[in-house]
Amino acid sequence: MTQGQISSSNEFVPFLDRLADAASAAIMPHFRQRFAVDNKWETGFDPVTVADRNGETAMRTLINSTYPAHGILGEEHGPENLDAENVWILDPIDGTRAFITGLPTWGTLIGLRTGGKPSLGMMAQPYIGERFGGDGNIAWYSGPLGTKKLDCRPCDRLEEATIFTTTPALFNDAERAAFDRVEDAVQLSRYGTDCYAYCMVAAGHGDAVIESGLQAYDIVALVPIVEGAGGVVTTWTGGSPSDGGQIVASGDPRLHEILLRELARTS
Amino acid sequence: MTQGQISSSNEFVPFLDRLADAASAAIMPHFRQRFAVDNKWETGFDPVTVADRNGETAMRTLINSTYPAHGILGEEHGPENLDAENVWILDPIDGTRAFITGLPTWGTLIGLRTGGKPSLGMMAQPYIGERFGGDGNIAWYSGPLGTKKLDCRPCDRLEEATIFTTTPALFNDAERAAFDRVEDAVQLSRYGTDCYAYCMVAAGHGDAVIESGLQAYDIVALVPIVEGAGGVVTTWTGGSPSDGGQIVASGDPRLHEILLRELARTS
Repeated sequence: MTQGQISSSNEFVPFLDRLADAASAAIMPHFRQRFAVDNKWETGFDPVTVADRNGETAMRTLINSTYPAHGILGEEHGPENLDAENVWILDPIDGTRAFITGLPTWGTLIGLRTGGKPSLGMMAQPYIGERFGGDGNIAWYSGPLGTKKLDCRPCDRLEEATIFTTTPALFNDAERAAFDRVEDAVQLSRYGTDCYAYCMVAAGHGDAVIESGLQAYDIVALVPIVEGAGGVVTTWTGGSPSDGGQIVASGDPRLHEILLRELARTS
Repeated sequence: MTQGQISSSNEFVPFLDRLADAASAAIMPHFRQRFAVDNKWETGFDPVTVADRNGETAMRTLINSTYPAHGILGEEHGPENLDAENVWILDPIDGTRAFITGLPTWGTLIGLRTGGKPSLGMMAQPYIGERFGGDGNIAWYSGPLGTKKLDCRPCDRLEEATIFTTTPALFNDAERAAFDRVEDAVQLSRYGTDCYAYCMVAAGHGDAVIESGLQAYDIVALVPIVEGAGGVVTTWTGGSPSDGGQIVASGDPRLHEILLRELARTS
């Protein structure tokens, strides 16, 4: 595929855009409308909307009809054929709290895991009309500013870093202590960013994302974007991010080493 | 002026859009670019960009040439003619931290204070292409979803409320205690929202904004939008929001009374 001067050798890139189009058509009629919100969990407040379910159904229908041998793992519906070589990992609305409060910082996450590894991913924001994609080797943006290659920026010192997290409330006590230590050392931290944080690291507007308790569908789509832009995504202990959990993503591999060291410190 | 089926009797409404256009032209070339960031304060990290200064200059030039008798109060340059009946209150980039991290949740704030009171205001987000305006009697949106009248939603109980604040770090200890008490009682709170919070209250996607330490240019433009949509904006003690300070904005006047009471409690 070619977008402007950006070429990916991954055969499924055009299909990523088709999935994003299908999700957008299902989701957008519900954005900034007054609608009912279900509580997904009995405790806490994790809203899931009709838009979320419809968006996933639209993508599943397209995958099943186009690539019936592929597997699917989504947030809203049950897993299908997870032993397949290619498994699509879907989160129709990452950032549901942004969505229900009308803020544009949510996105549709579409990831492909090939042989167990994140191989292709897209974050699509249909209200703004921007998409961030990556195949692990290159990453690209399309939207109001045209089509561009994404490149992480250099940053090898905590004191110069801008970090993101969705909310420190995600962390348990030990994780919180580690995060607080990092946050105290960096130049700037931003909360409430969800999938946008990873895309801004890929685009060189931030340096790292530190999160915990993630599901596979929260992160798989974002790994090939960050890696394609030159960054690194692992668990806090340096392992594969494929199954979620404690995740750290860095734009500069040197910063990543520093963050892994800081997050591993127990005092 | 008429936007779709929305009419304002305020003669300066078309000029609001001209100011927003001028600011956009000056600011947008700098969004999501790699650029130098100055530190405005010696302590802390309050970045101000070339975009911010250029945006304000563009608006000042247009005001001076069109309404030379009007006053101007901006974030970036000195005050002009503040005793005038009409004073424009400008913040070219509200949400500079969102701006420098590439997030789209910043906005250009353009307010008009007439006889000392907020009379007209706009929040313009040029990357998304959306604008929220109000004259205290009506409020409107224009953007990707067309042109719409803004209406706050009803909410008369803390337990059902969604509240916003830019960051709890804005509060001093006593304010923080009051905010924490409210936050514990509400259904959902969101941070990092800047001017978008007020517009989402006006649009009926959230119920209140609670902030402190605001300057006039942080709030004057937003008052006629929230009020035009049926909401209320005052200081924490129920006074005029014209000079900033401790601000609470509510979509439902009944919720506003509850919030004023809660924020006044000292234990």
